[in-house]
Amino acid sequence: METTAHLPMHAGYAERVRASFARQGAMALIGAGLVEVRPGYCAIALAPRPEVSQQHGYVHAGILAALVDSAGGYAGFTLFPEDSSVLTVEFKLNLLAPAQGDRILAEGFVVKPGRTLAITRGEIHAERGATRKLVAIMQQTLIVMRGKADSGNAER
Amino acid sequence: METTAHLPMHAGYAERVRASFARQGAMALIGAGLVEVRPGYCAIALAPRPEVSQQHGYVHAGILAALVDSAGGYAGFTLFPEDSSVLTVEFKLNLLAPAQGDRILAEGFVVKPGRTLAITRGEIHAERGATRKLVAIMQQTLIVMRGKADSGNAER
Amino acid sequence: METTAHLPMHAGYAERVRASFARQGAMALIGAGLVEVRPGYCAIALAPRPEVSQQHGYVHAGILAALVDSAGGYAGFTLFPEDSSVLTVEFKLNLLAPAQGDRILAEGFVVKPGRTLAITRGEIHAERGATRKLVAIMQQTLIVMRGKADSGNAER
Amino acid sequence: METTAHLPMHAGYAERVRASFARQGAMALIGAGLVEVRPGYCAIALAPRPEVSQQHGYVHAGILAALVDSAGGYAGFTLFPEDSSVLTVEFKLNLLAPAQGDRILAEGFVVKPGRTLAITRGEIHAERGATRKLVAIMQQTLIVMRGKADSGNAER
Repeated sequence: METTAHLPMHAGYAERVRASFARQGAMALIGAGLVEVRPGYCAIALAPRPEVSQQHGYVHAGILAALVDSAGGYAGFTLFPEDSSVLTVEFKLNLLAPAQGDRILAEGFVVKPGRTLAITRGEIHAERGATRKLVAIMQQTLIVMRGKADSGNAER
Repeated sequence: METTAHLPMHAGYAERVRASFARQGAMALIGAGLVEVRPGYCAIALAPRPEVSQQHGYVHAGILAALVDSAGGYAGFTLFPEDSSVLTVEFKLNLLAPAQGDRILAEGFVVKPGRTLAITRGEIHAERGATRKLVAIMQQTLIVMRGKADSGNAER
Repeated sequence: METTAHLPMHAGYAERVRASFARQGAMALIGAGLVEVRPGYCAIALAPRPEVSQQHGYVHAGILAALVDSAGGYAGFTLFPEDSSVLTVEFKLNLLAPAQGDRILAEGFVVKPGRTLAITRGEIHAERGATRKLVAIMQQTLIVMRGKADSGNAER
Repeated sequence: METTAHLPMHAGYAERVRASFARQGAMALIGAGLVEVRPGYCAIALAPRPEVSQQHGYVHAGILAALVDSAGGYAGFTLFPEDSSVLTVEFKLNLLAPAQGDRILAEGFVVKPGRTLAITRGEIHAERGATRKLVAIMQQTLIVMRGKADSGNAER
């Protein structure tokens, strides 16, 4: 897929993402950390541990979903206008290999920004030492909630 | 969709699901509880709290995904043969309304069991007092891992 | 899933769907016929024949997709306001069994109507004599294109 | 996404795809042509015309689905063993922009080949003169049907 340079519509786009991430209790609970925010891109990392596992000891598909849904959502949010917030309309996740290793990295990439909807894709890699394995891919639809700053409660 | 009666292939199907659920660190971490297991059906509940929220205070889409992915996976697992385990191939989740209330209930229903793959659908309702609101729907593909009992580590 | 009674916002909802269907060259090309239109529901049928097959002689997954995408889209369109048209944002299709028989029936059901987006699900059955087999299920997101009557060209 | 070199397991992989494509009545009906076959890749083209349109005159989402489902399926099939055929388990399609122009090009890329399942992604571009616009993206799961050559009828 071609890489397109994306232009943010809001100078404080990265700070806004960091503040929003900090309000996500779920990210703190699972131990996820915000790694990188760029226009049209966001990366979130997690260290695998028993508390986020499924029954075989790998990272739970739902935890992977939480990581990559947030990464895609914040990738989209970097390109949203000032007085707006972001909600996920839907996403689809394909699991390719067991998620295990030193670090799980979920990345979101904006494929198409838009006035009302934004489309992203996501990738999750499991890293162990110098090796990196693709463990999941995602496609996601976001909606721009205009007139509703991210800091308050949104009504959909 | 017609309701079909499903027949389990393994007498201890419900016990097997309960034992597997108990090994999922992620379900304990987010505070999810197994509510019901029947052939071709599983229900998992969660009490909303700040630790599982997104930035607006609703339950995080990824936490919803974890609940319904597990509900669908265990619905499928009730119909799998004895010496097998279950892995999610993929799922797709549509978010319909903010998830808030006294209890979030995720249900998985087997649409088509199979020798190699099983297809499920899922629903998530938010309950408040006597009211019940549909907040998400899911479609999921599972794979039957034969010759790999659920209690050990699976290699995909 | 509970069945909810849906109320159309436009008295001519059925006629509008029929007129729109008649403008779909693709439906005529594949030989699809509009079977039923009700508020929140639409059914489209196809007689299997070699011209719509894949390499094994069953109805092609893409043809099934065309049927159920239209059925879901028109199910949603029955609930849209007068001066609007409908576009598919995305859909996901699970194929459960080979599509063969006397008639393929694709049905769309509105799960959640909305001001901007509508969510539907779909089912495809293959009918042979008195038997009826579920061959595919779908989940779909639609967008309401306001101020753009269906008869003209829409710009997204 | 990293580009990985894929190795076919069957010397006649391209010829096998071409023969299978030629048996797809649906591809002939809609006017689709096979443009390129490489290990892990397949491209299929279509010239937009009223017979493949939806109600606004753009190429119908279902026709786009047929193109990209086949492109993904044949991309996967290039890597399958000799005595096998391919079936689509599921796919998800996001529509990004109206499909119009001189040529619609659907491409399938293998993300992960496998013994039982293969995961692909797809892109559809609309071309007009020298310009090229991304109009849809797809994620797809395929199943390897072993012991069932593509030329006969498969039972799932």
